[in-house]
Amino acid sequence: MSSEKKISQSVIRRLPRYYRYLKDLLDKDTERVSSRELSEMMHITASQVRQDFNCFGGFGQQGYGYSVKALYDEIEEILGVTDRFKLIIIGAGNIGTALSKHDNLKKSGFDIIAIFDHKESIFGKKINGIEIRDINKLEEYLTENKVDIAVLAVPYNQANELAKIVTELGIKAIWNFSPGDLHVPQDVVIENVHLVDSLMVLGYNLNENKKNVD
Amino acid sequence: MSSEKKISQSVIRRLPRYYRYLKDLLDKDTERVSSRELSEMMHITASQVRQDFNCFGGFGQQGYGYSVKALYDEIEEILGVTDRFKLIIIGAGNIGTALSKHDNLKKSGFDIIAIFDHKESIFGKKINGIEIRDINKLEEYLTENKVDIAVLAVPYNQANELAKIVTELGIKAIWNFSPGDLHVPQDVVIENVHLVDSLMVLGYNLNENKKNVD
Repeated sequence: MSSEKKISQSVIRRLPRYYRYLKDLLDKDTERVSSRELSEMMHITASQVRQDFNCFGGFGQQGYGYSVKALYDEIEEILGVTDRFKLIIIGAGNIGTALSKHDNLKKSGFDIIAIFDHKESIFGKKINGIEIRDINKLEEYLTENKVDIAVLAVPYNQANELAKIVTELGIKAIWNFSPGDLHVPQDVVIENVHLVDSLMVLGYNLNENKKNVD
Repeated sequence: MSSEKKISQSVIRRLPRYYRYLKDLLDKDTERVSSRELSEMMHITASQVRQDFNCFGGFGQQGYGYSVKALYDEIEEILGVTDRFKLIIIGAGNIGTALSKHDNLKKSGFDIIAIFDHKESIFGKKINGIEIRDINKLEEYLTENKVDIAVLAVPYNQANELAKIVTELGIKAIWNFSPGDLHVPQDVVIENVHLVDSLMVLGYNLNENKKNVD
């Protein structure tokens, strides 16, 4: 469990942003970009960009900046999206349904291969071509199919029980939309999308901004 | 635009978490909690908890810990959710629909009062009782209704144009679900929910964990 050079999560969190900005540059047929140009687009410092890239060997800036295509490919490789990830969604409610229909996930390397729910009346139905299955058949499904990531789109009071089930069945990554923190073994990675928390931070910052203007 | 004591965003981001944990304690009829107990539940240090609370005056820990109810009420007050926030959603697609149906928002102090879209065929229809309106009537609507937060649930290529429109109409807070960064005036606060970014970080961390186990 020890890594030779541990890269900080704040650097890792910037990788998808670099990737997006580089995609935009590619779409505009831009061939080269300097760390200064990237930093200005992204509202961070050029030295931050160079430090971030040094974590991955520096990507060999030569002459005038980086090759956009080469940099894009390297970051894509680091993010691992070229190999594609297989996802299952637990919970066919509003959020689960929206995610199943969200084509940006597929475009970005993430394939939702099944949806699980406990509601018998919807078993066999499909959302965006993806079948809704019986949560009680999850173990059987995971024996027969390689799954990388479980998406938890269930109410708060069911989240930890389901996290326990999926991790006991060997899932090592959870994308959690339930409004709580999950308790899982150390070798399981979690990414929370806490919608209400995010909105509360926005509300707080709005009120603070108003106070400062008044 | 200057504040006397600027509280860091990482402290502010922890406020909704404290609020959630305190709600759980309230639901369990727990009357008092120490900073150590809170810190253990939240997997942060007790000194972090005390430092965070000191940013807001310390909340007067006396004898054995804090009163759960008093602490909950104070954080609720700081988050401003008792006054409730009024939201409009721009974009009645998958994400916009899921958010409109997401009752946790209302429970947490956020009322969605209208949905706007450009698709004529759905004007006047309702999602979870909330009317879908013509995006071209947004200005008229904002003249007649107080709106705190605009939720952008539109494709990437429309996001910045719509951010411009809503901020020119006086909106000072945007909850952004489009996969890009918005360019808005300095007095506008933004909270991004970048779903694909979040999933990419999860995928990266999963792969790293696997490498370390191998």
